Amino acid sequence: MASGEEVKNKQVIFGDYITGFPKESDLKLTTATTKLKLPEGSTGLLVKNLYLSCDPYMRSRMTKHDRPTYVQSFTPGSPVTGYGVAKVLESGDPKFKQGDLVWGHTGWEEYSVITTESLIKIHHTDVPLSYYTGLLGMPGMTAYAGFYEICSPKKGETVYISAASGAVGQLVGQFAKLTGCYVVGSAGSKEKVDLLKNKFGFDEAFNYKDEPDLDAALRRYFPDGIDIYFENVGGKMLDAVLPNMRLKGRIAVCGMISQYNLERPEGIHNLMSLIVKQVRMEGFLVFSYYHLYGKFLETVLPYIKEGKITYVEDVVEGLENAPAALIGLFSGRNVGKQVVVVSRE
Amino acid sequence: MASGEEVKNKQVIFGDYITGFPKESDLKLTTATTKLKLPEGSTGLLVKNLYLSCDPYMRSRMTKHDRPTYVQSFTPGSPVTGYGVAKVLESGDPKFKQGDLVWGHTGWEEYSVITTESLIKIHHTDVPLSYYTGLLGMPGMTAYAGFYEICSPKKGETVYISAASGAVGQLVGQFAKLTGCYVVGSAGSKEKVDLLKNKFGFDEAFNYKDEPDLDAALRRYFPDGIDIYFENVGGKMLDAVLPNMRLKGRIAVCGMISQYNLERPEGIHNLMSLIVKQVRMEGFLVFSYYHLYGKFLETVLPYIKEGKITYVEDVVEGLENAPAALIGLFSGRNVGKQVVVVSRE
Repeated sequence: MASGEEVKNKQVIFGDYITGFPKESDLKLTTATTKLKLPEGSTGLLVKNLYLSCDPYMRSRMTKHDRPTYVQSFTPGSPVTGYGVAKVLESGDPKFKQGDLVWGHTGWEEYSVITTESLIKIHHTDVPLSYYTGLLGMPGMTAYAGFYEICSPKKGETVYISAASGAVGQLVGQFAKLTGCYVVGSAGSKEKVDLLKNKFGFDEAFNYKDEPDLDAALRRYFPDGIDIYFENVGGKMLDAVLPNMRLKGRIAVCGMISQYNLERPEGIHNLMSLIVKQVRMEGFLVFSYYHLYGKFLETVLPYIKEGKITYVEDVVEGLENAPAALIGLFSGRNVGKQVVVVSRE
Repeated sequence: MASGEEVKNKQVIFGDYITGFPKESDLKLTTATTKLKLPEGSTGLLVKNLYLSCDPYMRSRMTKHDRPTYVQSFTPGSPVTGYGVAKVLESGDPKFKQGDLVWGHTGWEEYSVITTESLIKIHHTDVPLSYYTGLLGMPGMTAYAGFYEICSPKKGETVYISAASGAVGQLVGQFAKLTGCYVVGSAGSKEKVDLLKNKFGFDEAFNYKDEPDLDAALRRYFPDGIDIYFENVGGKMLDAVLPNMRLKGRIAVCGMISQYNLERPEGIHNLMSLIVKQVRMEGFLVFSYYHLYGKFLETVLPYIKEGKITYVEDVVEGLENAPAALIGLFSGRNVGKQVVVVSRE
């Protein structure tokens, strides 16, 4: 493509703010026309999008909030935005040049003009590029910061992870095993439970949908209690976990996907356990930990190359399948990290 | 009294395990006969009880628990036990001698035989002895550990305290003012609110019973949010506080008195705020912090002598008034630390 050429630009447009469960029809596929040229004086980048990331936090961006929150809501009528991997076509920022590969915030479209403030240049391309939407991107950093910085893990401790086969959970479990912990995960299908046990090396795993009594399930897997709970789901699971925590246990609150589509979140009744067991429960956002990204890569890249960490992606092809992929997160349709391929190069 | 003498021993006997709101009739006054002599070979102490402490945690001891918890339940048919100040009449432990004053676990009766493991000898008697049930005892240590160790306070931060005129809250507020924080407290009567503002030096205080919308009240007092919440009540107040927390806020979970008499605690709906605001919420028990008691006394005794810390007690006279005093805690009848005088010497 020549610079300045007018091209068709397939886009996924956000319809309007919603309450309740999102539907595919809340996102609309259109084709715009885009001139492959940075606007005059732009300090951003014109990029070609390669891989897009579907992440649970995006549900919050489909809601109109009364109070300011940690991420901006989507703009109705504009393309969805989110994490992705992209190739620089033209740069208005001297830190980036044509041909660079970057990951960070971009648009759900073929070509985007984006600002560089959240972007990280990709230097290691001997791993799958899509990993920068997951294992080596925001979810990977989330798992790393959440586990090592919030949970203060020690060898021999017991670790429980909900939504354990997801983009973050699968990594937390592997970090916990590498730390010498006893690790149990839960997920919502037999296929996911098999992955946890046979691919990610969890000590035990269970399908929460098969457990009418979550408290009993947790007592079975943790007869002496849970030192570390990595919270991805919230609601009834959190309420069942609380009385099963051990003295001085830690709960890293990463997400509460079971609650995102409810008009009002479920009530949690067992917070007295925080006192009785002297538990620390801490919410965190990955944005506060990107200064650790260099250290994270130094830790994780060798693990990947030595085969000590593995990663499962659920890859769909084409922007036209992106709405279903994003909506599918909330019914647990995806197996592993949900990625959308816009283009492979 | 001569050693070995038989004396009448007034006692408050725990009836049986309860659910729901405790009643005075759950505690029965009787008079036993006790021989003023340590049993042969005892390594404990025979004491005369002077001051007894009424504390909210005692409600938990009136319940039969399915799971082990941090304090033993009372024994039906035996005297209530709890914190108190006592004088040693006879010692089977070389660390204590006749005439020593001690504070720690004792019985709700005139004379008790107690073990020495939880006891602390009282060296400073130039402050009211009853203070060792409150300001200089378990509640004081709770305020100190909870505020300085759990809340990591910094000058200029905003601090909110519920049940703020209670045994713990009034001290937390004064510690927070001494740290240079902006401090707001809530309580359940005009009299208590006046105490907070005029006696304890809180910047603001409000009667939560006069606030139909707790969220609106908190927004009014904390337009820029709350850095530190010292949680004494739980339930609706906690739910209102959560969305009002500031980024990287801290919640010290000390107690949840509004919940202790419910068959099932109320549900807390706003825990997503822990993530959005990256809040740390930590439960604690004073038992884990008694190693700091020496440091605590060094800090607090000078403050008392210099008039920088003041303390309000609600003193009732006589064991016969102890049941009403304890039960009154749960309707907020007490103003300040609830103490029962058994004998002044």
